[in-house]
Amino acid sequence: MTRIQLAKKGIITEEMKQVAMEEDISPDALAELIVSGKAVITRNKERNIKPLGIGKGLRTKINANIGTSKDKTDIKEELEKLQISVKYGADAVMDLSTGGPLKEMRKSIIEHSPVSLGTVPIYEVAVRAIEKYGSIVKMTVDDIFEVIEQHAMDGVDFITVHCGVTMKIVEMLKKGHRVLPIVSRGGSILADWICRNERENPLYEYFDRLIDIAKKYDLTLSLGDGMRPGCLADATDKYQILELITIGKLKDIAVSEGVQCIIEGPGHLPLNHVETNIKLQKHICKESPFYVLGPLVTDCAMGYDHIAAAIGGAIAGYYGADFLCYVTPSEHIRLPDKEDVKEGVIASKIAAHAADLAKGNPKAWERDKKMADCRRNFDWQGQISLCFNPDKVKAMREERPPVKDEQVCSMCGEFCAIKISRQAVE
Amino acid sequence: MTRIQLAKKGIITEEMKQVAMEEDISPDALAELIVSGKAVITRNKERNIKPLGIGKGLRTKINANIGTSKDKTDIKEELEKLQISVKYGADAVMDLSTGGPLKEMRKSIIEHSPVSLGTVPIYEVAVRAIEKYGSIVKMTVDDIFEVIEQHAMDGVDFITVHCGVTMKIVEMLKKGHRVLPIVSRGGSILADWICRNERENPLYEYFDRLIDIAKKYDLTLSLGDGMRPGCLADATDKYQILELITIGKLKDIAVSEGVQCIIEGPGHLPLNHVETNIKLQKHICKESPFYVLGPLVTDCAMGYDHIAAAIGGAIAGYYGADFLCYVTPSEHIRLPDKEDVKEGVIASKIAAHAADLAKGNPKAWERDKKMADCRRNFDWQGQISLCFNPDKVKAMREERPPVKDEQVCSMCGEFCAIKISRQAVE
Repeated sequence: MTRIQLAKKGIITEEMKQVAMEEDISPDALAELIVSGKAVITRNKERNIKPLGIGKGLRTKINANIGTSKDKTDIKEELEKLQISVKYGADAVMDLSTGGPLKEMRKSIIEHSPVSLGTVPIYEVAVRAIEKYGSIVKMTVDDIFEVIEQHAMDGVDFITVHCGVTMKIVEMLKKGHRVLPIVSRGGSILADWICRNERENPLYEYFDRLIDIAKKYDLTLSLGDGMRPGCLADATDKYQILELITIGKLKDIAVSEGVQCIIEGPGHLPLNHVETNIKLQKHICKESPFYVLGPLVTDCAMGYDHIAAAIGGAIAGYYGADFLCYVTPSEHIRLPDKEDVKEGVIASKIAAHAADLAKGNPKAWERDKKMADCRRNFDWQGQISLCFNPDKVKAMREERPPVKDEQVCSMCGEFCAIKISRQAVE
Repeated sequence: MTRIQLAKKGIITEEMKQVAMEEDISPDALAELIVSGKAVITRNKERNIKPLGIGKGLRTKINANIGTSKDKTDIKEELEKLQISVKYGADAVMDLSTGGPLKEMRKSIIEHSPVSLGTVPIYEVAVRAIEKYGSIVKMTVDDIFEVIEQHAMDGVDFITVHCGVTMKIVEMLKKGHRVLPIVSRGGSILADWICRNERENPLYEYFDRLIDIAKKYDLTLSLGDGMRPGCLADATDKYQILELITIGKLKDIAVSEGVQCIIEGPGHLPLNHVETNIKLQKHICKESPFYVLGPLVTDCAMGYDHIAAAIGGAIAGYYGADFLCYVTPSEHIRLPDKEDVKEGVIASKIAAHAADLAKGNPKAWERDKKMADCRRNFDWQGQISLCFNPDKVKAMREERPPVKDEQVCSMCGEFCAIKISRQAVE
């Protein structure tokens, strides 16, 4: 039985207890959220990692994308990116590899990852189709489901499936005027297949086959947003919303069959669209966990898209997004390097933490209160231990230390406001 | 006559025309905003720089703080920071020097700065008091106003004056339970002076002297928030709000006398307080320009406070903050170095731009639309020219270039979604 089916029968598993304890909610409340599709626990039946809870009332989680591309195939580097992601607090990692030995890469990541692992199987289907047939558009329906089952068998915890990229939306897109038709790799591969074969998206048409595989491995489906806007001008348009409605319906089917779902969301959104997008998703998808990529609040932050995403992600999280996909400084430029991964994870952690503070999460507040106390007491060790990258902060302080007084810093020196004001008023 | 007095008489100066043209509003509308205190133009009568408009309906502006401290006195480095700030788009710069030859530093910055310059004269008063009397608390009322007049004479365009740190608030603070009593250097210096001398804050008691100096040079007063919260636990508390009410009243007096004012604001705020803070300020201070420091949406982002500030600043700007003070990665750690200044300015520019997009600023949208068009057309030169740090992006792309196809990038290679989807649907 899947965990939805178990919870429906009133069976609270050890895994649920473990997640509930970490999130400071009762196991019964968590089980109820799982049954209603408002929260998920991502862990493949075959895997022995820490289970990850994502959804309503839980801490905001973050994901780091790693993986090779055809233009950069270095398994060692990707495994180092995995380590870095986990070190700086990624709650989940997705292997988005499209180059080199894909199966070896995935197995290696599964072996080394202590956190939930997601994949986008359609990438491998496309790579194999090029190898086998010389073209993506020749991939068969069976090719798709064989790769999906293989990922599930290998132990993947959640998969992105772009089930909402339907013939109907693609036909509309042909007649429409989007600036950037599709910016999702999986979405574009499927749209191309649909157009050239004049057939419906297999992930939509044979959704039942997906359900069967997911059930078998208690695999979580992350219903991908192939139609996510790729620029502010396309934000919150009819293509995006129609896809959301479609995947909202599929989610209902999946949950009723005992399969957990996450809904993926934008993308590029002006800041004033973020609240609306979250509320719309939460309403249409009946409070399903919402997994946002960014959102990026400007198209122009190349080299600093992790900051644009932190702005969007923090606001999204505050309004109810449950899972933030990190964006690195390399977004729109190149395959990220290790430093990019680190910066991306940290920016995303800051956004998630800011959202949790705004939502009143007690553990998040405890951390900030401790930090304020350390500042009050000039406890530098304490401050350093509470921040997101202690090594960096320690090195920065050492590089420009205070000259006379170890309690203060080289910004204010003897004019430290905390020191002066505490002497004055306490 | 000051520009408020001129505008009141229906005289539209060249300067107003210049700012109005840059902001795409009519000179009459701008003059009306200036008369009512809803917008300011910061330029000292003695200075010949590009005038800067800040306020209602205008583009969101950003400020970069530079300047020495007692623990780090390197004029050359500070001048380089000035250059960097201007290069990456700071609309104004503040010289917050507290170490080394202050007057020489200021004159040098004035000479080299093509943008508006602000200072916090109380810092120099404090430094001189230590030199002269051995103690800050011995500074006299005349010492304060002499330094202020000197700054105005030197050509400073706007000054921060912590007029709202009154005896009453300091007395309340003594009986209260703030985690961090005061985190504003100027605020703490004045609070200390008030406590030890048992006298009212001269900047409050003799506000008329301030008005007289400001009138003479058409100096803009930035009414400082000495009581800004220094941690999330202190956010939006009674001290902060009482000070806001006080400076709102002083602002009315100043504007009625023909002196332009900006209101300074927090500080450390949880994300869910930001909207309230902006709306409260805008109401209490009758839509005066609001100048926020951050706000930082978590206390724990040491080493990455520019990101925490970009999150808070973008949201603040969206709700109506007009002027964002940058925060660097060195905040809470040390005096920033040149790299910190660059990162701080860029993060703040991204926040301001995101806010302008959210407010529907046409120039901001034009930039993002151009970027989307460049992406659509695989125009990399165009993309690079539109971002906030073209050199960085160019270098990043060159470091990990695409292998086969110059149109795409090494993230997706042949799986470029824009390429595939355009071929499929267009």
